[in-house]
Amino acid sequence: MKRVLIVGGGFVGLNAAKGLGNVPDLEVTVVDRTNHHLFQPLLYQVAMAGLSPADIAAPIRSLLSRYRNIRVLQGEVLSFDLERHVAVADFGKLPFDYLITACGARHSYFGHDEWEEFAPGLKNLEQATEIRRRVLLAYEEAERSSVPEDRKRLLTFVVVGGGPTGVELAGAIGEMSRFTLARDFRNIDAKLARVIMLEAGPRILPMFNEQLAARATRDLEHLGVQVWTGSAVTKIDADGVEIGPERIRAATVLWAAGVKASPLGQAAGLNVDRQGRVIVEPDLSVKDHPNVFVAGDQSCFTHQTGKPLPGTAPVAMQQGQYLAKTIRLDLAGKPRQPFRFTDKGQMATIGRSRAIVEMGRLKFTGFFAWMTWLVVHIYFLTGFKNRLLVVLQWAWSYLSFHRGARLIVTKEWRFNRPEEAKPAAIEAPKS
Amino acid sequence: MKRVLIVGGGFVGLNAAKGLGNVPDLEVTVVDRTNHHLFQPLLYQVAMAGLSPADIAAPIRSLLSRYRNIRVLQGEVLSFDLERHVAVADFGKLPFDYLITACGARHSYFGHDEWEEFAPGLKNLEQATEIRRRVLLAYEEAERSSVPEDRKRLLTFVVVGGGPTGVELAGAIGEMSRFTLARDFRNIDAKLARVIMLEAGPRILPMFNEQLAARATRDLEHLGVQVWTGSAVTKIDADGVEIGPERIRAATVLWAAGVKASPLGQAAGLNVDRQGRVIVEPDLSVKDHPNVFVAGDQSCFTHQTGKPLPGTAPVAMQQGQYLAKTIRLDLAGKPRQPFRFTDKGQMATIGRSRAIVEMGRLKFTGFFAWMTWLVVHIYFLTGFKNRLLVVLQWAWSYLSFHRGARLIVTKEWRFNRPEEAKPAAIEAPKS
Repeated sequence: MKRVLIVGGGFVGLNAAKGLGNVPDLEVTVVDRTNHHLFQPLLYQVAMAGLSPADIAAPIRSLLSRYRNIRVLQGEVLSFDLERHVAVADFGKLPFDYLITACGARHSYFGHDEWEEFAPGLKNLEQATEIRRRVLLAYEEAERSSVPEDRKRLLTFVVVGGGPTGVELAGAIGEMSRFTLARDFRNIDAKLARVIMLEAGPRILPMFNEQLAARATRDLEHLGVQVWTGSAVTKIDADGVEIGPERIRAATVLWAAGVKASPLGQAAGLNVDRQGRVIVEPDLSVKDHPNVFVAGDQSCFTHQTGKPLPGTAPVAMQQGQYLAKTIRLDLAGKPRQPFRFTDKGQMATIGRSRAIVEMGRLKFTGFFAWMTWLVVHIYFLTGFKNRLLVVLQWAWSYLSFHRGARLIVTKEWRFNRPEEAKPAAIEAPKS
Repeated sequence: MKRVLIVGGGFVGLNAAKGLGNVPDLEVTVVDRTNHHLFQPLLYQVAMAGLSPADIAAPIRSLLSRYRNIRVLQGEVLSFDLERHVAVADFGKLPFDYLITACGARHSYFGHDEWEEFAPGLKNLEQATEIRRRVLLAYEEAERSSVPEDRKRLLTFVVVGGGPTGVELAGAIGEMSRFTLARDFRNIDAKLARVIMLEAGPRILPMFNEQLAARATRDLEHLGVQVWTGSAVTKIDADGVEIGPERIRAATVLWAAGVKASPLGQAAGLNVDRQGRVIVEPDLSVKDHPNVFVAGDQSCFTHQTGKPLPGTAPVAMQQGQYLAKTIRLDLAGKPRQPFRFTDKGQMATIGRSRAIVEMGRLKFTGFFAWMTWLVVHIYFLTGFKNRLLVVLQWAWSYLSFHRGARLIVTKEWRFNRPEEAKPAAIEAPKS
């Protein structure tokens, strides 16, 4: 009986576990800090009130419940002892024969962790609902305010970072203010909201072909998003952002710039690159530990193109499947094969009806690209019962220009809270 | 131009606003602490992971956006000056000619506010997601634990209060442990979870006919819920509950017992009853202030039966409609009519396929009653786009025994939090 420990229930962990499900003489344990697997490519839809958290997340436990040799434990792995083949979690020790660690990445504020408070990133459901709360609250506050300067600040949204996530967020805010919210307010004109995307590099979407990126820029501008390239943020505070000598007052700043890998790899004494990603061998194992694998956003795999593979869902899914196959080969006494990523292309969506798609030499944009994006994403919501619900929700949202999940939910759950002393308001609203 | 101020976007506020929508020479302002109207009769489904928050809530702003004379402001009303016809909110002063206040009720811990921490109630979305989090986390912790005593405590759920909410919560937990979660765990047997309902009175559901209540008790027992009547709670702490000399160790205690009205009425110097509800005239106005109305759970209306009307959704809906009509009569110079509640009956559901329904002399139970409950609740999700989605979600949940929204979402949204020093775990889990 061999024990496989999988740390992280993302695309790597889930696919590896499925590939090892019901394999004889194998006991698999999946540990994750949360109880759910998250379909991260659609997380921005939760942040932008288009989908509910439950539409894109499902309990890892129930996704794997049909495999009798897999157990799922919710908890946090704190450290690894690779010599003794033991992981230490916050609830106890977990011995293993094989270890797969795929704990993903978090946002990096380039040494300015104090910016996080003012500019949340988008990596998990908590952050998505927090972003949703901030964006919706800004409109509510602007509606109540009678000071023009305050309204302007409240209706300014800055997205830092011009990668796919930044483009998706900025496009969704632009669209929301121009269409969804336009008729809901009385004192403000939601269409006048400013959405500014800041990119430090010379252009957005550097991983895409230049023509496609230019088209995405035009599509964003069409939704009222102002794209500022060559604009590195030098300061973020409660009042807004600074770009060198320039300053934008903004109540809502969202972070979609750098990432760094989970610190677990470095803590275990493994070789990491500048972003904290563990440098892996051609079979995703780490040096001197052939039975310890690191994959997904947490790993740096350079054996295919000379450059690290990008931190995307397709890479993670294929690595998870590959690792299950590799362990099965080991058990059968057969030699391992090196990992090969099959690149099926990349895409990004801009609002409700535009996208850019790049598949090898094939490139397309506009509504057809958006339909492709939609079909691919719905297809990959595999194992989720919610596929049909998501389609319906989108269909509704598309036809009605409403957004489904526009809820502001505070973090405070107690109702009977002690009444706080509040200053009497002086300013009377316009009436 | 007359100004109507509506405080509270519940069933009263929403129905009153709709009835005053697009009435000439009338300016309506709706103020609520949250941005959403909540379909409270289904809130227990969110707490029990059957539905997502967005399925039963919608922005007040968008529900009322087609009425050009209505503006919606998110904020908290702090006090009223009834002589000067002004309400003070946390963002400014709101003058009015007519005031409708319907701020609902909160939970009452009978002078033991310290119990709330250990036994959350169920009145808003935050509390519902908190309850969901606690119930799901208890199973997760039990799965990780290797100490039989701890497991027993973690798998014990106590519901305090035998009214409709208590019955719905206890039934849902019983069903969840017996069916939904039964095959998802490896170390624990979810079917062995204890669910105990504590009721201080001689029987549960006192507002229902005795036979129906007895049937509900049997239905609950069928789902493994132990019903303890004549059991007044004397203490609640982190370890469990005490009922006089008896003690139950339970990780999860839920409060569905007493309520008290919003304190705003009392603070404004109005006559209130023992539960803080404002005593109203036959037209729902308060004494000496014919243009100030209090309705819904916040008011005590005794002119129909001699006893206060119950704090239910039908009462609130009818009062909201009545108030809109009354203000329209005033504007037309016609005399007011007293409020009359048309009682169409009451119902409570127990799990996935049982309910009790009482309509005048007509009483029925079992599957047909459950279908009635379902149809009525879906019908009343009016104005919500989510009606179809809720039906589909239930249909899926019914057929598959899955629960759709089993997400544990913590209140902490920051990912890059400073690493806390965690004690090294000593206990090794069974493996």
